[in-house]
Amino acid sequence: MHTLTLVGVGLIGGSIGLAAKKRGLVRQVRGVGRNRSTLERAQALSAIDEICLDLTAAASGSDCIILCTPVDRIAEQVLQLAPHCRPGTLITDAGSTKGLIVQAVEDHMPAEVHFVGSHPLAGSEKRGPEYANADLFQNRWTIVTQTPKTDGTALNRVMTFWQQLGARVRIMEPQEHDRALAMTSHLPHLLASALAGILPAQWKDLTASGFRDTTRIAAGDADLWTAIFNHNRQALLVALQSLEGQLSQYRQALERNDDTTITHLLAQAKKVRDALGS
Amino acid sequence: MHTLTLVGVGLIGGSIGLAAKKRGLVRQVRGVGRNRSTLERAQALSAIDEICLDLTAAASGSDCIILCTPVDRIAEQVLQLAPHCRPGTLITDAGSTKGLIVQAVEDHMPAEVHFVGSHPLAGSEKRGPEYANADLFQNRWTIVTQTPKTDGTALNRVMTFWQQLGARVRIMEPQEHDRALAMTSHLPHLLASALAGILPAQWKDLTASGFRDTTRIAAGDADLWTAIFNHNRQALLVALQSLEGQLSQYRQALERNDDTTITHLLAQAKKVRDALGS
Repeated sequence: MHTLTLVGVGLIGGSIGLAAKKRGLVRQVRGVGRNRSTLERAQALSAIDEICLDLTAAASGSDCIILCTPVDRIAEQVLQLAPHCRPGTLITDAGSTKGLIVQAVEDHMPAEVHFVGSHPLAGSEKRGPEYANADLFQNRWTIVTQTPKTDGTALNRVMTFWQQLGARVRIMEPQEHDRALAMTSHLPHLLASALAGILPAQWKDLTASGFRDTTRIAAGDADLWTAIFNHNRQALLVALQSLEGQLSQYRQALERNDDTTITHLLAQAKKVRDALGS
Repeated sequence: MHTLTLVGVGLIGGSIGLAAKKRGLVRQVRGVGRNRSTLERAQALSAIDEICLDLTAAASGSDCIILCTPVDRIAEQVLQLAPHCRPGTLITDAGSTKGLIVQAVEDHMPAEVHFVGSHPLAGSEKRGPEYANADLFQNRWTIVTQTPKTDGTALNRVMTFWQQLGARVRIMEPQEHDRALAMTSHLPHLLASALAGILPAQWKDLTASGFRDTTRIAAGDADLWTAIFNHNRQALLVALQSLEGQLSQYRQALERNDDTTITHLLAQAKKVRDALGS
């Protein structure tokens, strides 16, 4: 691959640039964004080689374009740049939701330009190219989406790309991805934020590692996460309902002083958590 | 202080032994427990100098006794060993709840033997002397409880002891401690467990650092935490009710597609979490 274009050069975009260059997968990495200062920081960190402030200009001459922007901007940007791509260009993304994005773009690709949705399960509550890391995807899962309309060759190219960055790849339908991530990522964010949100100020000093671990991701950007919640509303509501049901089991057991049920619930949760590893 | 007796030599007891010895606060640390193998491991790690399997025998000849056992056993053990203590013996504990323990013991101390409740806000989901650490209490808060019946000299001695281990000390009433810890420790544990408990097995691989951080403490021991929940039932139910109310705000905002409220809730939570530090 000659030219890889990254739209958005924060933690994820910057890490893709570093990882692709470290592994010799591309000759040149082009960074696109609206904020020149972020692009310059990414360039100074060698995450990108070249800066481009214009999305459509960046599209032409790229072999692969990866959208690493907030989920509510990805589809619109894909539709904007696709007409400027040359045949054979591969477009993918790194968004935390897939259903709305894939649905919005897959019927609107020019001939010989293909979009395949991706979601690398990596990142943190931190933002910016300063937190980029060439090994961010190593041994982590990346979901690649497939629908009846997905081009098989493009799917394989996207899978190979992530595998070359060190990721393990799993294919899912966009809706299945969103249901799973509602539970494994979006609900945890909501919960962490709900817990942080009710902490009375006078008890701040009385938090130890348990509270801090449990609420760490609540430090994530509010606008980014509002967009994710909005994109995955239905699945997130289903996951939240399941959680509320579980909390209600704890509450009822506490109310009737039922230690047996509490121990049973805690032991089952411990088993699940132990199986995840550290 | 000549002889410090630790009842329970796991993560907390072991860390107190290591910390007191490292700082030269005691001549000899005696470890008491039912499980000889745990005591021998603690001795091998130099967390204790001497092993004792009999609680009442250990009590005599101690200057200070610290109960580092599960919360549902502390009061009973204090009442059992107190009659065997010589005048001037100081008894404290490291239990995660304070109300029931202090209430159960403070009227039943022999003359010149004093109990003061303590709770060092340190630890982890790990168990056993292998995880003990001489600096566990360094710059961490330890709560010391005071009631109208607390002996002032004993309170000062307990505070000085924790301060000498590197801790910052805060005095609270037992009930205030329990209300605060219900929010800062017991509810996070319940939440982490509730979330881990509803994860479908087929999505286990799709968890990343967010899910793992948020559920880390669910790996704690189910029996220990059942006892803590039982001891702090009322305050935990109040904290849980507050959390359920907050979740309901998120749910309603999601249902009506109200991004403004979601952003407001997330931004307020981020502010709280950012203020806690890493």
